[in-house]
Amino acid sequence: MPASAIMKDLPIDRSGIAAAAARIQGFVRQTPVLHAVQADFATQHPVTLKLELLQHAGSFKPRGAFNRILSAQIPAAGVVAASGGNHGAAVAYAARALGIPAEIFVPATTPAAKVERIAGYGARVIRSGEAYAEAALACQERQRQSGALDVHAYDDPDVLCGQGTLGRELEIQAPDLTHVLVATGGGGLIGGVAAWYAGSAAVISVEPEGCPTLYSAMRAGAPVDVAVSGIAADSLGARRCGSLMFAVAQRYLAGTVLVTDAAILAAQKLLWDRFRLIAEPGGATAAAALLSGAWVPPSGARVGIVVCGANTDPAKVAG
Amino acid sequence: MPASAIMKDLPIDRSGIAAAAARIQGFVRQTPVLHAVQADFATQHPVTLKLELLQHAGSFKPRGAFNRILSAQIPAAGVVAASGGNHGAAVAYAARALGIPAEIFVPATTPAAKVERIAGYGARVIRSGEAYAEAALACQERQRQSGALDVHAYDDPDVLCGQGTLGRELEIQAPDLTHVLVATGGGGLIGGVAAWYAGSAAVISVEPEGCPTLYSAMRAGAPVDVAVSGIAADSLGARRCGSLMFAVAQRYLAGTVLVTDAAILAAQKLLWDRFRLIAEPGGATAAAALLSGAWVPPSGARVGIVVCGANTDPAKVAG
Repeated sequence: MPASAIMKDLPIDRSGIAAAAARIQGFVRQTPVLHAVQADFATQHPVTLKLELLQHAGSFKPRGAFNRILSAQIPAAGVVAASGGNHGAAVAYAARALGIPAEIFVPATTPAAKVERIAGYGARVIRSGEAYAEAALACQERQRQSGALDVHAYDDPDVLCGQGTLGRELEIQAPDLTHVLVATGGGGLIGGVAAWYAGSAAVISVEPEGCPTLYSAMRAGAPVDVAVSGIAADSLGARRCGSLMFAVAQRYLAGTVLVTDAAILAAQKLLWDRFRLIAEPGGATAAAALLSGAWVPPSGARVGIVVCGANTDPAKVAG
Repeated sequence: MPASAIMKDLPIDRSGIAAAAARIQGFVRQTPVLHAVQADFATQHPVTLKLELLQHAGSFKPRGAFNRILSAQIPAAGVVAASGGNHGAAVAYAARALGIPAEIFVPATTPAAKVERIAGYGARVIRSGEAYAEAALACQERQRQSGALDVHAYDDPDVLCGQGTLGRELEIQAPDLTHVLVATGGGGLIGGVAAWYAGSAAVISVEPEGCPTLYSAMRAGAPVDVAVSGIAADSLGARRCGSLMFAVAQRYLAGTVLVTDAAILAAQKLLWDRFRLIAEPGGATAAAALLSGAWVPPSGARVGIVVCGANTDPAKVAG
């Protein structure tokens, strides 16, 4: 089978991501990068941080949300989404920016700060279920009833292309990276980023030991259900990775790494101490892989780390 | 008197700042800028934030500290400095990076977090006096005794040129700014930045009502002592502005603005809410001028705001 045919198998590609970047321009921030010095991560490898935690609504999620909503016909009922918190905040933010109504379903694990943020953007928030998967079921039911546009948190081509714009932006800002560390929840961000790089840089998935969603899927050869727990479960606690992103991961992922909650906490503290960044646990998870030694850069590596979310109580980070 | 002769009167100029930038390159971070959207500051004027709070040691101060130390012969006794906290942290950071001993004198107003940071970089910290001016006297006395290099917090040409590199960097990153808002303490940062722009953008000083150091000096026609108080006094509470910077301010400053502590608190909250930035009170003071309406941009203005420090307890910002 020729390479071009293989490429066509995938649900998203670079041209779709480039189109998404054009579509969402002006609605999302081009977030900056910061180049670390040797002492920051105690490594001689160059390290570049992608400060996506400075994105609107405090995480990368508006990229996918805007691309999905701007690609669709919006029903009178507006949009509906299920979320651990960050995606809901992004959909609520995008809906407010575009002047359309939004309903957001969140599980019990969603922190109060995230619920307040979603409501603060004017969306209706509905608590439903113990974990994201249950909120997602309630969301589907509501969608059938209301006819609203369902903005899935990760398993949607437009959402994936939107998240992939982060990879495109990072490649422009730091074209010489050889490795890019990305935290994985449902896999929307890493699916988009891996599809953008398409093997030109090694994209590595980092998950908490308590949320080994993609790690388990890669070993099983298919998306499988996992139990989710731990300090990053509100942002990385998808029970099962997306089927669309999984095809991308199988083709292009360079590795899957697990980190402990203690490593995530240490990464949060380091990001504050050395860079004055407040990252939520999921936002510090990629950095934790390098910092803890769970992932060791090979000789000559130039490492990119996506710091992807900040929606936490700052007192928990620096205390 | 021809313009060239006028230029020579000033203690610093663009060529000195350019030389400083070359000297300190690699020792300080090139901090990123972030372009706000209309909703962020509720203004139709383009606003660019200079994220200098992401600098090493959590403020702009390493620019001047490195330039001063790298320009001098270092005695065996190393360096000594007096500081409300940020300058001390910067001198301690620079001394550690360059492998030389440091003693830092701080007053009672210096927060515990800043004292810990200074000590964490390996410097000896000496508490002395109620306010910065008294710590500065104790520092001078110690310098005469030990022979260490005194790294003044602001009233030194090398320090001023180092701080001026922020203006140079900002002009490269955002060349179309018409106005740049800068918080003023002793005046090192605004002196350097105003000397760089030299009138090509309008540089405006912002101070808390409780620390009207430069505001009072400009009205008196000379540096004068003022009482200092309020939430930003630990970083902006110099009793008297520098004599060197004052000559620059008289030539090039476009205005001096005062803001209330309430406006500073509101700016801290906005920077967290909209940008996920933790700014200390002094770091949010420039933003407070725009946000509170203490300074109103004229028609066509493209506004730069320097967010210059993050050394605070994050729990106080978002709480």
